[in-house]
Amino acid sequence: MKRRQHVGVHRVACRGPSDLSGVQALIESGKLLPRDIVAVMGKTEGNGCVNDHTRDFASSSWCRFLSPYFGCSPDAVEQRVALVMSGGTEGVLSPHFTVFTRSWTDGASPGTGDAAPRLVLGIAHTRVFLPEEIGRMAQVEATAAAVRVAMQDAGIANGDDVHFVQVKCPLLTAAKMQSAVARSASLVTHDTYESMSYSRAASSLGVAVGLNELPIGRIFDQVIGTDRALYSARASASAGIELDGNVVIVLGEAAGASSPYRIGHAVMRDAVDAASVRHLLRERFGLDADADAEAMRRRLVNVLAKAEASPDGSVRGERHTMLDDSDINATRHARAAVGAVLASVVGQTALYVSGGAEHQGPAGGGPVAVIMRTEDRFET
Amino acid sequence: MKRRQHVGVHRVACRGPSDLSGVQALIESGKLLPRDIVAVMGKTEGNGCVNDHTRDFASSSWCRFLSPYFGCSPDAVEQRVALVMSGGTEGVLSPHFTVFTRSWTDGASPGTGDAAPRLVLGIAHTRVFLPEEIGRMAQVEATAAAVRVAMQDAGIANGDDVHFVQVKCPLLTAAKMQSAVARSASLVTHDTYESMSYSRAASSLGVAVGLNELPIGRIFDQVIGTDRALYSARASASAGIELDGNVVIVLGEAAGASSPYRIGHAVMRDAVDAASVRHLLRERFGLDADADAEAMRRRLVNVLAKAEASPDGSVRGERHTMLDDSDINATRHARAAVGAVLASVVGQTALYVSGGAEHQGPAGGGPVAVIMRTEDRFET
Amino acid sequence: MKRRQHVGVHRVACRGPSDLSGVQALIESGKLLPRDIVAVMGKTEGNGCVNDHTRDFASSSWCRFLSPYFGCSPDAVEQRVALVMSGGTEGVLSPHFTVFTRSWTDGASPGTGDAAPRLVLGIAHTRVFLPEEIGRMAQVEATAAAVRVAMQDAGIANGDDVHFVQVKCPLLTAAKMQSAVARSASLVTHDTYESMSYSRAASSLGVAVGLNELPIGRIFDQVIGTDRALYSARASASAGIELDGNVVIVLGEAAGASSPYRIGHAVMRDAVDAASVRHLLRERFGLDADADAEAMRRRLVNVLAKAEASPDGSVRGERHTMLDDSDINATRHARAAVGAVLASVVGQTALYVSGGAEHQGPAGGGPVAVIMRTEDRFET
Amino acid sequence: MKRRQHVGVHRVACRGPSDLSGVQALIESGKLLPRDIVAVMGKTEGNGCVNDHTRDFASSSWCRFLSPYFGCSPDAVEQRVALVMSGGTEGVLSPHFTVFTRSWTDGASPGTGDAAPRLVLGIAHTRVFLPEEIGRMAQVEATAAAVRVAMQDAGIANGDDVHFVQVKCPLLTAAKMQSAVARSASLVTHDTYESMSYSRAASSLGVAVGLNELPIGRIFDQVIGTDRALYSARASASAGIELDGNVVIVLGEAAGASSPYRIGHAVMRDAVDAASVRHLLRERFGLDADADAEAMRRRLVNVLAKAEASPDGSVRGERHTMLDDSDINATRHARAAVGAVLASVVGQTALYVSGGAEHQGPAGGGPVAVIMRTEDRFET
Repeated sequence: MKRRQHVGVHRVACRGPSDLSGVQALIESGKLLPRDIVAVMGKTEGNGCVNDHTRDFASSSWCRFLSPYFGCSPDAVEQRVALVMSGGTEGVLSPHFTVFTRSWTDGASPGTGDAAPRLVLGIAHTRVFLPEEIGRMAQVEATAAAVRVAMQDAGIANGDDVHFVQVKCPLLTAAKMQSAVARSASLVTHDTYESMSYSRAASSLGVAVGLNELPIGRIFDQVIGTDRALYSARASASAGIELDGNVVIVLGEAAGASSPYRIGHAVMRDAVDAASVRHLLRERFGLDADADAEAMRRRLVNVLAKAEASPDGSVRGERHTMLDDSDINATRHARAAVGAVLASVVGQTALYVSGGAEHQGPAGGGPVAVIMRTEDRFET
Repeated sequence: MKRRQHVGVHRVACRGPSDLSGVQALIESGKLLPRDIVAVMGKTEGNGCVNDHTRDFASSSWCRFLSPYFGCSPDAVEQRVALVMSGGTEGVLSPHFTVFTRSWTDGASPGTGDAAPRLVLGIAHTRVFLPEEIGRMAQVEATAAAVRVAMQDAGIANGDDVHFVQVKCPLLTAAKMQSAVARSASLVTHDTYESMSYSRAASSLGVAVGLNELPIGRIFDQVIGTDRALYSARASASAGIELDGNVVIVLGEAAGASSPYRIGHAVMRDAVDAASVRHLLRERFGLDADADAEAMRRRLVNVLAKAEASPDGSVRGERHTMLDDSDINATRHARAAVGAVLASVVGQTALYVSGGAEHQGPAGGGPVAVIMRTEDRFET
Repeated sequence: MKRRQHVGVHRVACRGPSDLSGVQALIESGKLLPRDIVAVMGKTEGNGCVNDHTRDFASSSWCRFLSPYFGCSPDAVEQRVALVMSGGTEGVLSPHFTVFTRSWTDGASPGTGDAAPRLVLGIAHTRVFLPEEIGRMAQVEATAAAVRVAMQDAGIANGDDVHFVQVKCPLLTAAKMQSAVARSASLVTHDTYESMSYSRAASSLGVAVGLNELPIGRIFDQVIGTDRALYSARASASAGIELDGNVVIVLGEAAGASSPYRIGHAVMRDAVDAASVRHLLRERFGLDADADAEAMRRRLVNVLAKAEASPDGSVRGERHTMLDDSDINATRHARAAVGAVLASVVGQTALYVSGGAEHQGPAGGGPVAVIMRTEDRFET
Repeated sequence: MKRRQHVGVHRVACRGPSDLSGVQALIESGKLLPRDIVAVMGKTEGNGCVNDHTRDFASSSWCRFLSPYFGCSPDAVEQRVALVMSGGTEGVLSPHFTVFTRSWTDGASPGTGDAAPRLVLGIAHTRVFLPEEIGRMAQVEATAAAVRVAMQDAGIANGDDVHFVQVKCPLLTAAKMQSAVARSASLVTHDTYESMSYSRAASSLGVAVGLNELPIGRIFDQVIGTDRALYSARASASAGIELDGNVVIVLGEAAGASSPYRIGHAVMRDAVDAASVRHLLRERFGLDADADAEAMRRRLVNVLAKAEASPDGSVRGERHTMLDDSDINATRHARAAVGAVLASVVGQTALYVSGGAEHQGPAGGGPVAVIMRTEDRFET
């Protein structure tokens, strides 16, 4: 008898980077089985840049929290759960965690056709990268391989059924740069903030290769972070100080899964492209943003999106000032803008909007995925 | 024979706070008569807070620029033109100037019914305020009186025909506070940033009184800046370091004017309330935000809006982090959010979105006015 | 036979808010007995303002770290160890922890006269404060009482022998303010950042009362945070989001203690008053800042200091811009300045310089305490 | 008969970037002849980074102010006066202008030996640079040539008599970068903030070559901004958005000049190296920082210094956090630190401390020049 994958998704508000009381309440109510947790995507309230310690604070809080459930040390939790913490809740964005569980059941559930596509999920890790590999082909190739492993883990055979690939990737701290310099290794950059951009860039091109959006032959060191004509429509990469290799989470759909969720994706062509998201809601989920506000509230789990300041310095033909602002980093501006646009469409501000969209969607735009509850009898 | 008011509006991009080359080009092309300029509302690219010198830089550039046309000293220009510079183009917002001209023609123009309501404008100044008057009843009362003078100047008899009242008001600098302390005068606050909020609050309540939205009897010192149930649906106040009294600009409609523009207003109930603006566009101007993008591009002059971080700490029931952010002031977050939402509705990023909406619309929301070209033969 | 107090002090560098590897190494080497730890004063690398989560991150890391040594839960550690985390290492300041241990030995140690004054330490806690008590007399009085309890705990009879009193005090978060508003309680301020200032102000006046620097009769609600002629020369208060009552640590000297350290204090009259610190080093410790750099390096443990932007807007008669800066909070500027001045005197950048010196030293200045190793055979 | 050079120096406080009332007062008192002004070095209160419009605001205010005195257009003033505006008055630093005049007298003045070395000054401009020349050898070579022209202009034959070379250099704005990309020109960087660093680096190496501190053969594109073993002990470079070529000001001493000032220089080895400045004051000017505070106040005109965050991530062996701070740029931290250290030595906060010291002094340190009044009968 066939095993059926069941993915659960819980969006949980928090009062700070270490507040897991909402998660605790879900566990106590029996709605969330902690041992089934396979991934957490968090929005924490730091600056989302180099010295954002809220990501690490949240991650270590999760590790400590889950450690007794898994019967392992806090450090070992990170080997079992993909913790992706994205810093920065500028504007209306609300800090929260999206918790993914995965479990397996035998046979068909009554009332659900086996053929209906439902949310599935897979995970993979790359090896640890040397500082000089960050932002270069080594990172691209390792990520592409990890995407394929994660697809297999998810039970997705066709790349078209993948709707979002989240990658968490390392950055170059001052310490890492010094260690590399000591070995006379040549780095892609000596600026910590800039290294976040290179790492996201290489990771995203890796996703594009892994999903066959781009052939590996078109990618080489010189295009990473520069040739924005090359991009993935489904990659999302976040750089963080707390890890040394990439973690890859694939989200997609597969027939036969019993998850009470569906997922779809669109590409925002620029930071104010609400139309593409409205179109996605209408076409894939049958929801009109204006008329179906109540159904939206009931069904919407989360929107996963990437944001960036348009690198050509303009939006819809008019100059923006994000790239020249030395007080607020451009990624912060972009998250504030895109987060508010998406919230105005879906009526919810606890959204996963992550900054820095190099090779993630077209220049100045970015990929958007929407996870919706199905309207059947399943409960998460 | 009756004189007809003709208001012209030009939205002009700039490359920096002192760049008036676009204005110069309009003058040289004959489209803009500099001596007809009565008001300029600018968005400049500073932080919009206490030490934003881009507002002053823009204002003094305008004074110098217009001085030869008016045949007066640069300082005297500010007595003739209401210069309102609002700092802060966070997110997608694009720095620009909105230039209002006013002229008078004799009799009826052919092809336009005298009765059609068209854009009109009036201006008034209050006296200079003492530091201890800022944020208090003295400022409320002087502003209310100035609103009535400006309405008369605009030719508007009925307060319902006023759609936007822009006030520029002073703040308490360290220097002003010290001078007051030296006189043993008691100030509403000793924090410069907070004084901007108090000054906007008193000015906005003054507008509400001037437009008969609120009776003067309901306003006293203690409610200024605190009782957010009291508000104007059409007030917009910006505080700036460069002036010592209030300047009031009334925008509305009157039958008989020959201006090729109309104006309407709505109230956003929160920072992501795109629906109210979509409704305004549809009901007043017959434009569907999705379907009529091309007509919108052709007809839209500007959106004038106020933005603020919801003072109760949440948007649509979920926590925001704007008020607890010590790296980026809440007004900057709010402008980034509301600016992007409006741009996603109208498809244009050079919008007048100003921060700090105390008593300007409901708590966390704000007034929005839209100026549209009429689709008749008139040219601006 | 008399019991002798022995206070140990370890200054330990860290690579981040949660990095306790240096502490671990000291424990493993036998130099630090974890069960003897009574207080930790940390400098963490956040913004030191409202949304600085590095303080909480460090505190919770310490709690988890010490929990197995104390055989209690992480939460219970905070009842046993006074954890004072001050955020903000602007300029040259280096993140670190100063760890205080206390133990008791019987009788006299050979070679040390019982009468020589040596470092002693005492601790006390106030009750939890209601939001409306913060920044008001209730906080002053509770703090004064706690100072006296801590002096007794330290074995100091005479207030003159107290050289530094560190208080950690709560602030008003948006959540606390809302809870108070819901009960119709009147708060001292509705601005989170400003509440930090009020809380430090009331706490510092409490220290002044506790040390008999000021009579309680001179303090009332209206002078808290405003009358800067009232101050303690030895108080240091830091506000943090992670606690609800005050923690008080008294540092001083007592004859008979066996600690191999001495402590002294001075008052900086403004942010650039290096002279007062040079004088303290020379007079109390016999060290010339220029000539004795090597001895300074060997003997200096730490400098504990408060910093603030001069509230009159000038330093040595010339305008400063710290109070009008809306991009960087004044406390951050002040820490950068005072930290660098102190580092230039003592040749060390891992210094405890904390921002916000309301009633802590004269306006624009602040108290400074120096802890030095004695040059005898004792090892810490 | 020999012509004697007479350089005057006035340090003038300002209340904002455009406030020249202090300069006006000096002119009206007869102490300052506006037509003699040859250079102005200003500290303005912006962020000192890419979008600091206070520099441009100050420069254009000066141009307008001097235009009637010179009988030329405001734009033409910049060809006659070297306007160097350095943004950023972090910490205690006080905004001000240092105004240099130069005039010529015939023969010897009574009471002054012709042989006594006195302050002299010379100025030169490079050509306008293409975007792709910024940060590269073309900028190095043009700057070196300009230094030699400026020395000749100053009447200095021997490079050892040069004590400070101020260079103002351009940066890459988004607009310049786009124009270069459009021509397929390869830029040294695509990050505006980083371009400021490259431009200062190339300019400073140009000074080192011009003063024979380094042979041109040792400089090539790859070392610019990277090999910090190469540096000038007297170069100071500031990047600004308001110019397209370099302006070079040489300050030194020459026998025979009648200026009532002397100048000397030292090199700070790190940001807290007060000792080197104390040594300079003692050895060259006979002033003890502690004992001669009154004479210092009377004689000191200004200190001209460069500041930077140590690129190896530590000061005196302890980690600093300036380079990893994504909220405050490292240059701002460094100015706050070095400004306070210098103010604590000389007792004055209106100091010219400029950020970004690439190849200007050793890594993490920087050059410092001190201008002192001579104690003879001359009045400026």
